[in-house]
Amino acid sequence: MIKKILFTFLFSALIIKPDYAQNNDTTAIQNIYKEALRSDEATDNLRYLCKNIGHRLAGTIGSERAVEWVQTRLNEMNLDNVYLQDIMVRHWERGDKEYCYLKSDIFGKKELNICALGTSIGTGKEGLKGNVIEVKSFDELRMLGREKVEGKIVFFNNSTKQEFFNTFQAYGDAVGPRVTGAIEGAMLGAAGVMIRSVTLGISDFPHTGVMRYADSVKKIPAVALSTRDADYLSQCLKFDKELQVYFRTTCEEFPDKKSYNVIGEIKGSEFPDEIIVVSGHLDCWDLGEGAHDDGAGIVQAMDVLRIFKALDLKPMHTIRFIAFMDEEVAQRGGRKYAEIVKQKNEKHIAAIESDEGGAIPHGFSMESTDEQFKKISSYRGLLEQYGLFQYRQGGSAVDIYFLKDLGFPRIGLLCDSQRYFDFHHSGNDVFENVHPRELKLGSAALAALVYLIDKYGNQ
Amino acid sequence: MIKKILFTFLFSALIIKPDYAQNNDTTAIQNIYKEALRSDEATDNLRYLCKNIGHRLAGTIGSERAVEWVQTRLNEMNLDNVYLQDIMVRHWERGDKEYCYLKSDIFGKKELNICALGTSIGTGKEGLKGNVIEVKSFDELRMLGREKVEGKIVFFNNSTKQEFFNTFQAYGDAVGPRVTGAIEGAMLGAAGVMIRSVTLGISDFPHTGVMRYADSVKKIPAVALSTRDADYLSQCLKFDKELQVYFRTTCEEFPDKKSYNVIGEIKGSEFPDEIIVVSGHLDCWDLGEGAHDDGAGIVQAMDVLRIFKALDLKPMHTIRFIAFMDEEVAQRGGRKYAEIVKQKNEKHIAAIESDEGGAIPHGFSMESTDEQFKKISSYRGLLEQYGLFQYRQGGSAVDIYFLKDLGFPRIGLLCDSQRYFDFHHSGNDVFENVHPRELKLGSAALAALVYLIDKYGNQ
Repeated sequence: MIKKILFTFLFSALIIKPDYAQNNDTTAIQNIYKEALRSDEATDNLRYLCKNIGHRLAGTIGSERAVEWVQTRLNEMNLDNVYLQDIMVRHWERGDKEYCYLKSDIFGKKELNICALGTSIGTGKEGLKGNVIEVKSFDELRMLGREKVEGKIVFFNNSTKQEFFNTFQAYGDAVGPRVTGAIEGAMLGAAGVMIRSVTLGISDFPHTGVMRYADSVKKIPAVALSTRDADYLSQCLKFDKELQVYFRTTCEEFPDKKSYNVIGEIKGSEFPDEIIVVSGHLDCWDLGEGAHDDGAGIVQAMDVLRIFKALDLKPMHTIRFIAFMDEEVAQRGGRKYAEIVKQKNEKHIAAIESDEGGAIPHGFSMESTDEQFKKISSYRGLLEQYGLFQYRQGGSAVDIYFLKDLGFPRIGLLCDSQRYFDFHHSGNDVFENVHPRELKLGSAALAALVYLIDKYGNQ
Repeated sequence: MIKKILFTFLFSALIIKPDYAQNNDTTAIQNIYKEALRSDEATDNLRYLCKNIGHRLAGTIGSERAVEWVQTRLNEMNLDNVYLQDIMVRHWERGDKEYCYLKSDIFGKKELNICALGTSIGTGKEGLKGNVIEVKSFDELRMLGREKVEGKIVFFNNSTKQEFFNTFQAYGDAVGPRVTGAIEGAMLGAAGVMIRSVTLGISDFPHTGVMRYADSVKKIPAVALSTRDADYLSQCLKFDKELQVYFRTTCEEFPDKKSYNVIGEIKGSEFPDEIIVVSGHLDCWDLGEGAHDDGAGIVQAMDVLRIFKALDLKPMHTIRFIAFMDEEVAQRGGRKYAEIVKQKNEKHIAAIESDEGGAIPHGFSMESTDEQFKKISSYRGLLEQYGLFQYRQGGSAVDIYFLKDLGFPRIGLLCDSQRYFDFHHSGNDVFENVHPRELKLGSAALAALVYLIDKYGNQ
């Protein structure tokens, strides 16, 4: 594209509307965006979290280092209050890198890329070997019945469908076997389950995520296969139903472990006891660096505090940053936080969480009353020029979910979903895959919303 | 982010509104999106164009191969009409890979990454060597005056500013020295100019783009330096004002050459003589593969024809795909097309072009009457759920600009700008940097708009 100076000047003239420029809020929000985009601090923080700390699944040494680091960073920001909130988290570890191969009289032996699903039991050092039965759905599995399933490895090879515009819908449509596949398989006597990774790309990365067992059903090992290897295995099975797959996982669950939510506050000048929460979750899966999920949310929410400080904005209400722990496995951080809010009878104005990755933000989803929804949606006039055009009632984010029934709006940052599942829960969720400007626009979106809620309230 | 099945089902239920689902247009547009997202043809076409043909600056062998390929692809699509439109294009070629180094008594000798600016004269084989004078603006240069500039290489080191939300504004703000820097420098007796690449990232890629000479001013060679090397050179100049830079460019302009716009049509069932243009430009700069600029636009516009065929949609008006030639240098394709439209007195309903890269589309910009703008903006109700929320009056795209004053709306696809200048006019504009889903959403956006304009007209 050629962009003649004439064109671009014309364009600038159209965008910067002088009648808006006199309005205080327009200027304040413009300054928030400029500050967010000019500073490299969110990017530098994400780089540190990803590259110097790395993955940080609840209960692991990485999560301990991450807690210390966030606390240190907050202390360096001259906040009014920085503290930890004790919690007991579930503690599951992956153990050795997983190993898997298929062996076929026709195709020979080939290694496959797998990972254990979160909270799965391991196979033990000896591993698990068996014939494979491929299905696309629970219905198909049940139709086969115990006779065809018993003793085998069930291979759920349902695709994540491209046709959904919003990839979170594609994910919701496809994720069933990951969550309860081990239960369904075990009920028919399966020895283990393999699922096709829940992602829209074809790659060598297996994607993990939490799975469940049922109390009354035998626990069997569950793993995810990369989409490329799922396609390969499926092709081989077409010609050789007798092929065998071997896999070995040494993952294990340990007793619950002490960990922390990390909290930092700028006290409100008028209503210090009325709180606006801005948050993300500090834990992440252990295959990548948790860059999109949810390092981005953490550094964006921290950046809200920095932006307020840098612009010398004095909020009337207390802005409370929270780095929640254990979102991925048991949400103990979110649960504990809500418990303490209720115990202390703390008053909240709103709770905001960023947990849809570091892509370009499109707006906000809310769990709120109609009144609150109307109020917050009314900010659209100021925010749409920054791409924040979506205001949706229903759904927010997981950690703040537990604050339900307390009467204040819970708000999730809606981010572009197109690339999200390329990274989600995989070794591909690394710093390099977050774009610095998109990351910073998330910081700015959160800060602008906090600014408006602080000034105009929640309903 | 954990996404519980409960959450996602709830979410799905909220998105698929049953009252809309009965509406024909909603269903038609949903089908367009599904078809665009399911098919890999746009991606496969872009891969071919980038990897098998590569760059295709007007007048080069690449552009000839690209014309042939597009014509062949259109012929394979069973269209009602496929033809070429002869044009004479400007023909500039880069010649040998550019070579540049700085030499300093303090810092020694270091190679720098440069590229010639489009349509610049070359230095000749002997190259150009001289002291460097760094400035940030034309004002600063003029203040220095002839005495300090004469015989030197002027180094325009103005940054592309992060603080703009829309990066096209940042580009407009920064691009001046690239376009007319050689004129300004030569007026003060400079021997050559180097500009800091117009891009928001720090990288080793120099970014080219068209520059201009003035008839009455001496032509001097102009090159762009990568941002990383611009920073390095600037640092060195702080300590050693006497350092010298050498660069060699063998670029050259040749006599105008014959080339073509490539055109393919689906004839309208009711109004075959009334035309809706959907287009992109086939030429691109010669450093990368022209993936975003504008391979994406070409394959998206071609995909509109494919989608109409695949869904058996019979347009009432003729849909005319155009692959314009020579957008980057002299816009001869766009000019010639407009000339012929006027000669033949062809009736157009609308002309649409995709030339903002292959990132996620946000809406449409229009050059139109208020009536037309109102009409087309009214489609927002149907399209916003696909992220198409921006409807802006002012600016469309370059090739269709020449159709002005014919009374029909010219419409540009507005795409997300955040990553665009990471790639723009550089060796980084390659196939791998276009996301398949984002690319396909551009096809769908174009097809949906063509569907609505075909059905409801342009005002």
